[in-house]
This record gives sequence, C-alpha cells and structure tokens, in this order.
Amino acid sequence: MTIEYITLNPSADKMPLIGFGCAKIPPEQTAEVIYNAIKVGYRLFDGGSNYYNEKEVGDGIRMAINDGLVERKELFVISKLWCTNHAKEHVRMACKRSLDDLGLDYVDMYLIHFPVALEHVPFEVKYPAGWTQPGDTQVTRARTPMHVTWAAMEALVDEGLVRNIGMSNFNAQLMMDLLSYCRIQPALLQVELHPYMQQDAYVKWIQKQGIAVTAYSSFGPASFAAGGLKHAKSVEPIFENPVIKEIAAKYNRAPGQVALRWSIERNVGVVPKSTSVARMKSNLDALNWKMDEEDIQAINQLDMGLRFNDPVIKGWDLPIFL
Amino acid sequence: MTIEYITLNPSADKMPLIGFGCAKIPPEQTAEVIYNAIKVGYRLFDGGSNYYNEKEVGDGIRMAINDGLVERKELFVISKLWCTNHAKEHVRMACKRSLDDLGLDYVDMYLIHFPVALEHVPFEVKYPAGWTQPGDTQVTRARTPMHVTWAAMEALVDEGLVRNIGMSNFNAQLMMDLLSYCRIQPALLQVELHPYMQQDAYVKWIQKQGIAVTAYSSFGPASFAAGGLKHAKSVEPIFENPVIKEIAAKYNRAPGQVALRWSIERNVGVVPKSTSVARMKSNLDALNWKMDEEDIQAINQLDMGLRFNDPVIKGWDLPIFL
Repeated sequence: MTIEYITLNPSADKMPLIGFGCAKIPPEQTAEVIYNAIKVGYRLFDGGSNYYNEKEVGDGIRMAINDGLVERKELFVISKLWCTNHAKEHVRMACKRSLDDLGLDYVDMYLIHFPVALEHVPFEVKYPAGWTQPGDTQVTRARTPMHVTWAAMEALVDEGLVRNIGMSNFNAQLMMDLLSYCRIQPALLQVELHPYMQQDAYVKWIQKQGIAVTAYSSFGPASFAAGGLKHAKSVEPIFENPVIKEIAAKYNRAPGQVALRWSIERNVGVVPKSTSVARMKSNLDALNWKMDEEDIQAINQLDMGLRFNDPVIKGWDLPIFL
Repeated sequence: MTIEYITLNPSADKMPLIGFGCAKIPPEQTAEVIYNAIKVGYRLFDGGSNYYNEKEVGDGIRMAINDGLVERKELFVISKLWCTNHAKEHVRMACKRSLDDLGLDYVDMYLIHFPVALEHVPFEVKYPAGWTQPGDTQVTRARTPMHVTWAAMEALVDEGLVRNIGMSNFNAQLMMDLLSYCRIQPALLQVELHPYMQQDAYVKWIQKQGIAVTAYSSFGPASFAAGGLKHAKSVEPIFENPVIKEIAAKYNRAPGQVALRWSIERNVGVVPKSTSVARMKSNLDALNWKMDEEDIQAINQLDMGLRFNDPVIKGWDLPIFL
C-alpha cells in the first residue's frame, strides 16, 4: 500500500491524502485506537484540543513509537486552536498545551478550528473550554480580529512549534481577506465535504491559491445521525445511497471506500475515523485504485449543499455559514 | 405620504426605509430622473462611484435644491467606495472625488461596495475603474486587508466627510471579524434581497447587531434579465409570480409595490429605481399600507436562495459568495 501525498505550501512538507480523524473517539479508547491505526498504516492524525482526547492521542502515538512501529518524522500530526484561545497571548499557550498533551515537540499542522473568537476561558477553569461555559446558555464572542490570531499562528511557525498553519470552516470572503494580510500563506483548509456537500467551486478556487484541502465528515450524515442530529437522520445515509452502493458493487468495494476515493480523486484529503481495526483497514483501501470518470460524475450529481457541522444547528448564535 | 425611517447606530441619524436607486440609470438621463424623484417625494439616494453617473446624480440634487424643492439636510445621500480604492491612501481620495462629483460637503452614508480589494487604478487613467482594466481579461486582487480599509472609513467619519459608514455584499464571517476590530460599528449592510433571495436568518442576525439592512434588487431578476443575464431570464419575473400577483390583486396594488412592502415589513430598506415618474410614484406607494401576516408568509415561501449579483456570474475570479 502506497500512501498518496499532497505537497504543502510554503513548507514543501508532504501531507498524506488519507489520515485518521481523532474527533468523537471516547478518551478511554483513544490510545489503543490510535496505536492500532498506526499499526494498520495510518500516518496522519487529525486531532484538536476540543476533541477531549488529545492527551490520549499522544499516548497512542508514544506507545507506537516506543514499540518501534513508526518514527515521529514519519507521522503527520494535526492539532487545532480552539475559539476561546484566539487572542495573541493565548495562541502560543494553547499550542504549548496541545504539544504537552500530545507529548510532542512540534505538530505538523496547526489549524484555527473555527473562524470565530470566543471569550477566553483559563485552562485551570475548564479545558478544553467547549462552546459555552457553566451558567451560560449562549456563546460569548470575543473581540479578537482574525489578523491578530493569524499573526500569532505565524509566530508559532517561526518558533518551530508547528511546521504548517491553516484553518477549518473559513469561507471565501474571510479567506480572501486573510490572503491579503498573511505573511505565511495558509497550507491547508479543512471543511465539511461529502457527496451531499461538495462545495466544488470553492474547493477548486482554494486549490488554485496553492492551498491544500481536506474533507471532514466524508461520510456525510453518518456521525451526526449517531449524535442525534435531526436533519442528519432524515437524509439517506451515504452508505445506503443507491448511486454509492452501485459503484461500490461495480468495484467490489465498501460504500465508505467509494466516498473516500471520490474525495481523493478531487485531490482532497480525507480523515475517516473508526474504532474498529477492520474498518480502519477498509478505509485505508481508498488508496491504490481508480474510479472511472463516469462514476465520479454520478457522485457529483448527489450534491445537495447539505451541511451538518454548523454552530447554529447546535443552538449557538454564530451563523458563520450565512 | 409619510416616509418611514430606521434610526442608525451610532449616529442616531434617521434613514428613510424607501429610497431611490441610482445604479443603471444612463448618465444623460440621470440629472432629470433624480430631480423628478425628489419632486415625487424620494429623500434617500443610493448612489456609488461605480454607477458611472455620480456627477449627474449631483446635478439632479443641485437642481432640486436650487429650485427650492428640498434642502440638503432633508436628503440622505449614499455613495460607495469602489474595490480599486481600498488602500489607506485611496479611501479618502475616492470619497473626496465622490463628494466633488456630487457637489456635496458630506454624504450621509458611505459603503464599501464589495468585500474585495482590487489593484488601484489612478483616477486620471480610468474613472470609475470598473472590474477589469484595458488589456486585462481578469480582475487583479490587491493585498489590502479589510481592517485597513475600515480604519480609513472610520477616519472619514472623524473628519466629517461622511455621517455613517457601512458595507455591501459582506457575509457573516467577514462581518463577525469586522465587528471584532471596528472602532465605529457599521450602520448599514446592503445586500441582495428579494422574494427569491430572502436570506432571512442573516438579515435577522445583522439587525440584532444593531445594524440596519437595505435590500438591493428588490425586484429580483428584473434588471438582470434586462441586462441579458441568462439565469435571470430563465426564472419567472417577480412581477408575474402568481403569489405576488394574487396579493397585488387583493390590495389593489402593483406587484412591484407588493415586493417593496414585503421588504419594509421586515424592516429592510428598499431602493427601487425607475426612470418613469409614474413608476417612481407607484414604488413610493409601498409606504403607508400594511400587508396581512398570511400574505407575508406566502411570500416567505417563495425563497429559492437565487442570487443574481455575483462577480462570478460576470466571469470574475472572485467567488465571494462561497
């Protein structure tokens, strides 16, 4: 099995096109899951402080390195800056905390998790801070401009704490603005992308700027339906979509492999998560095969502009996708 | 006829809910059209440097003032900063040029026309600059951050050249960012709004921030179909929509009055344009009547998220609405 890579700007680092998503893994299972994922062949780990398991991700990585399964330099580790830490004085603190939890000297990629600054929560009060604070029923925005946060992100690169910087959930207007003031251009944008939410024009425009794109939620409604989200339950699961199933049958693949392969064919990275070793292996098999153009086109027709990961759906007064 | 107003923040100025749009009026007709509009009762004029008729708008205003139809202080004049003038050193120059062309000491509102900075074009080379320059087939973005432009806009308020500042075509992410660094909060956001493009959640969120909202293109595809835009021609004109026509018949109103009244019922300003005095009067009659809640609800059902004014449709590499 060969892992395909995207070469990042401006570092020229190589980022695997397929990686392992660390969100929504229960902390008590995380170390073992990460260890197994490395054993199975995953080299990129897409984590973040607000996934509530960053320490355990670090434990899994350390176990694998100690067992000689892999060296640090073979791994590509991602962490994310949470919204409560956007201020100049908190960005480095938050990064250092993630590095401490991971037990690493540097991460390969550090992303601004969401394009909104929330009121800071001291680490000793609550960590990770999440969206709302005890006693609050609503989020509290903070007056930290994105250009201030980005400059602090750039300083992390200068210091060598992170190899590359990027963002998640940014739209075109904020990206264009950021491109007008950045000293270090973003290496990666991670957004929600699956057959029901393709954002084709945006993906192509971002890639044209020399910025890599990674999909989150490649399986669409699946993980959101499991979390009880109503409009994720009401739509047909990607794995049961007749177009996806037909293509899966044609290549003798699992529907999940088809969804992942479709993304890789667009040169868009994927970070599927699974706690089952069999499923981990299956997902990795999105590599090393090709899908016919007609099948890609058929999946392209499934777009509904259907977004699942939106703070508004969670009830927060942050309509970032309007 | 009483003109309804919105009180603006932070100036406490009163902005008429209905005004007159100056875009797409041929320069040779503009002075007379503006004069007639004032005579008919319009007090707000929504102009901009890139409408290619700002001098003539000024001529019309001056004729009306000289004839004693109106005093300057009774008028609410809007101008807009074009994309090629976003740099700190060009914002004041551009504002002064608009004031010179209008023949006014100040405008009541100055808006950033689009959320993108384009390469500056010296006024003596081409004014207004438009989207592309001779010999270029594509737009050229400039590296001017929005926070720099906004600070220059605030300086215009300080100097008294403009009474209020705001923007057009900004989305929520860029607005949230701007709200995190502005010293003077925006007074107004102007966006495309009509029964086929209602942006209800966004309008409500903006209004909740204490920012007034004005609709442009209240008649939807009408002016774009006239301009030859394909997807504006392929959709049913608002004036011929059966729901709109039925409501118009119920109140013995013109379909255009229904579209305008629906907007005013949302507390969203409108700036219809017409070169015909009869139509000007008809549009003004969107004031002083009420629409039943059931009719508002019926129009609310017409939303299609259908946008007509998008630089991408013009062929420019500026996907600002992604």
